[in-house]
Amino acid sequence: MTESSQRHFSYKRNCEIRDINLFPEGMSRIALGVEYKGNLFRGFQSQSSGVPTVQQTLESSLSAICNEPVTLVCAGRTDTGVHATNQIVHFDTIAQRPEKAWLRGANTKLSEGVSIRWAQPVSPLFHARFSARSRTYRYVIYNTKTPSALMDKLVTWDRRRFDIDAMIEGSRYLLGEHNFNAFRGADCQAKTPFRRIDAITINRCGDFIIIEVSATAFLYHMVRNIVGVLTAVAAGEKPSSWVGEVLASEDRCCAGVTAPAAGLYLVDVEYDTDFNLPINSKGPPIIAGMLNEAI
Amino acid sequence: MTESSQRHFSYKRNCEIRDINLFPEGMSRIALGVEYKGNLFRGFQSQSSGVPTVQQTLESSLSAICNEPVTLVCAGRTDTGVHATNQIVHFDTIAQRPEKAWLRGANTKLSEGVSIRWAQPVSPLFHARFSARSRTYRYVIYNTKTPSALMDKLVTWDRRRFDIDAMIEGSRYLLGEHNFNAFRGADCQAKTPFRRIDAITINRCGDFIIIEVSATAFLYHMVRNIVGVLTAVAAGEKPSSWVGEVLASEDRCCAGVTAPAAGLYLVDVEYDTDFNLPINSKGPPIIAGMLNEAI
Repeated sequence: MTESSQRHFSYKRNCEIRDINLFPEGMSRIALGVEYKGNLFRGFQSQSSGVPTVQQTLESSLSAICNEPVTLVCAGRTDTGVHATNQIVHFDTIAQRPEKAWLRGANTKLSEGVSIRWAQPVSPLFHARFSARSRTYRYVIYNTKTPSALMDKLVTWDRRRFDIDAMIEGSRYLLGEHNFNAFRGADCQAKTPFRRIDAITINRCGDFIIIEVSATAFLYHMVRNIVGVLTAVAAGEKPSSWVGEVLASEDRCCAGVTAPAAGLYLVDVEYDTDFNLPINSKGPPIIAGMLNEAI
Repeated sequence: MTESSQRHFSYKRNCEIRDINLFPEGMSRIALGVEYKGNLFRGFQSQSSGVPTVQQTLESSLSAICNEPVTLVCAGRTDTGVHATNQIVHFDTIAQRPEKAWLRGANTKLSEGVSIRWAQPVSPLFHARFSARSRTYRYVIYNTKTPSALMDKLVTWDRRRFDIDAMIEGSRYLLGEHNFNAFRGADCQAKTPFRRIDAITINRCGDFIIIEVSATAFLYHMVRNIVGVLTAVAAGEKPSSWVGEVLASEDRCCAGVTAPAAGLYLVDVEYDTDFNLPINSKGPPIIAGMLNEAI
């Protein structure tokens, strides 16, 4: 620790810590894996208007367990209607509780549509947002002639006949680092439109089409805009090369429609393995078993 | 057709017809395959109090398409909270409509939580209830340490450690024709407690346990009471032989708790193949792919 880091650093709960000695004694940093049904909330992030958000129910439940006000930091702020199987959050607390208290105790106090999958103390060097190396989203399309009442809000129903190979071909244009301005929602507040997509995989499993996208970080509506463009290609409305053209245009007006939130899931956040976070199936459970993954 | 059948028969819409010549000219009998999310309804059957039921939304949607009042007959009246992937219904109408009108038209008018999977004209000899040879239900247990927000209302969550082999052993006592009084809900209005169970299969697929029961017909709460007893065995609270004891007691008080409605699905109704009804995957879609079935 340099003198200057000592001088300028002032600890605030949940803040990024680069030197473990700067974390207050008696404080614990707890990480949680959280699953939620996005259609029941107005997004992850708490809003001043008091509308139901995932953060608000988590914070109020954890505050009750800690017997002190708890605020959270999350890995990725999902939008209204977007689900998560593995949202990662952390918070600092002076409360000492067994793992069971976080898991069972907090789960019983949460609103319908949120559950904590795991909870554990982590190194103070861990930060749910800043330690994340990459985020992975899955988009699930239910590709049948008629909609499924049982899958309503959990998938996006699309009756079009899809050419998956064309979709895969189109997706290749997006790999790597690019200016994703054309795939950026109007309300995006990111400073730069540059993002790096590490992988896109597309699978058809029976009536489901699953599009998985991994990137260090995403712009607002980026995955849904990518899905909008790729499905237009898959439906034969545009050639595969159009994906490259949209990207090169750097113009949001060139991309197709934004795919609905219903099919989108935050399924994984990658951290340094030194943090020893539990490894969970990406899910969502509705496609469990279809991708030959451990479930 | 004998003289006596002519004399005594008087056609009413949807009635059972044994002689095709007795079906009025200009009338069509339409069969539908229906999927629904039982937690959004107070059961299948219309109720005088006007609470939301599956039958009520189907009838009002089909009446709009037919431009005349439509009433329905179903294969199995499911209870509040019980889902269906393949409920079969039929109705008689003088309206002539293309298949698309039933399927797309009616689907757009239905309440959230119901969808028509297929629709087709059938022989007047078909009757959704009386032509059914057997009904198959599946019960889906999500067997994990923590509940799943995404699977809420679509599965029954149970954290107990289950011995599937013990459950299978216990289930064998129930096969064949028996007095199922011990498995009959208090409000059951069936004339006889005798039913014949043709098959029970139990599978663990990852975190899911799927119990499938087929019988000519079921008593009120019969599947849920069977699941209550089998899970008590699987959890080691009772030996397998207890299933036989409960059955032999013919006493409802001997059986365990009634398993929650959330995990229960009507997944198949079997008819004579001459009726040419479409063959659909049993589902539910949440376990699609896990049982190596066509999906």
